[in-house]
Amino acid sequence: MSDEKQEVYQVHPIGYVREEQEGQFIVEILEPYRPALNKLEHFSHVHVLWWAHELDNDEARGILQADLPYAPGTRAGMFACRGPVRPNPILMDVSEIIECDEKTGIVRVAWLDAVPGSPVIDLKPYIPVSDRVRGVRVPSWLEDWPEWLEDAADFDFGDMGG
Amino acid sequence: MSDEKQEVYQVHPIGYVREEQEGQFIVEILEPYRPALNKLEHFSHVHVLWWAHELDNDEARGILQADLPYAPGTRAGMFACRGPVRPNPILMDVSEIIECDEKTGIVRVAWLDAVPGSPVIDLKPYIPVSDRVRGVRVPSWLEDWPEWLEDAADFDFGDMGG
Repeated sequence: MSDEKQEVYQVHPIGYVREEQEGQFIVEILEPYRPALNKLEHFSHVHVLWWAHELDNDEARGILQADLPYAPGTRAGMFACRGPVRPNPILMDVSEIIECDEKTGIVRVAWLDAVPGSPVIDLKPYIPVSDRVRGVRVPSWLEDWPEWLEDAADFDFGDMGG
Repeated sequence: MSDEKQEVYQVHPIGYVREEQEGQFIVEILEPYRPALNKLEHFSHVHVLWWAHELDNDEARGILQADLPYAPGTRAGMFACRGPVRPNPILMDVSEIIECDEKTGIVRVAWLDAVPGSPVIDLKPYIPVSDRVRGVRVPSWLEDWPEWLEDAADFDFGDMGG
């Protein structure tokens, strides 16, 4: 196991998050990767995976537990929350696809909780049989949160929504 | 943009996929990262992100489109499918948590579509308001697939389920 701990893998940006106007996000895919967008427009939703480049440092990556800003008094591990500080700062949102153009590399999405300029590292289509859980349970500190992505916009998450 | 293309980010394994018996998977979190598991057991489901280490080479990472094995005659980009060959070989499954032990680092899950020995790079709890889409649409080649994760086990995906 100690040898395995020395392994390191290389992630390359495939594009970047851009904010065209306030709250209007696009993912701009780099030219060499654009053929990989082919037929993504047939899906309604996509997982956008990006890199929290501003939190890619030893100090932030070494934080393993934190007080949850939306649940006062609750401390949890970074693998039990969706916050941006993580051992590998990979962040992910599911978002509705508004437009997807293989030629220009523009993927316009309904919403992203990403810092503009963040490197995007993967896109994965949302597939119900892989991603949609009927019988889901959440902890007590999340029990008042909405049950569906579509209801997020109308909900007051308090300090933050992560 | 050309400068940005030179960027590279470092991913470290936080654990490994193990197959205890046929079809019985655990994620074994490395000792230094185990505190990050704290309170994950309060969630019913988790996203497991792992690295397709056997496909981490220039040839595989350069493949941008492929014929879909479950949809004969349909070719699509790698960002429009969930296959293991990707520019950044990050793979992801949502799975039910059977057991999660911060002390031993064992996360026992109901199922994983991972090669045993694969490096795990992140765990993210499944949170309905972030991950559960009510009004989802899929392409014609997936229209017969189940609508829920729980129905995956009873469905015949044909050649492969990715």
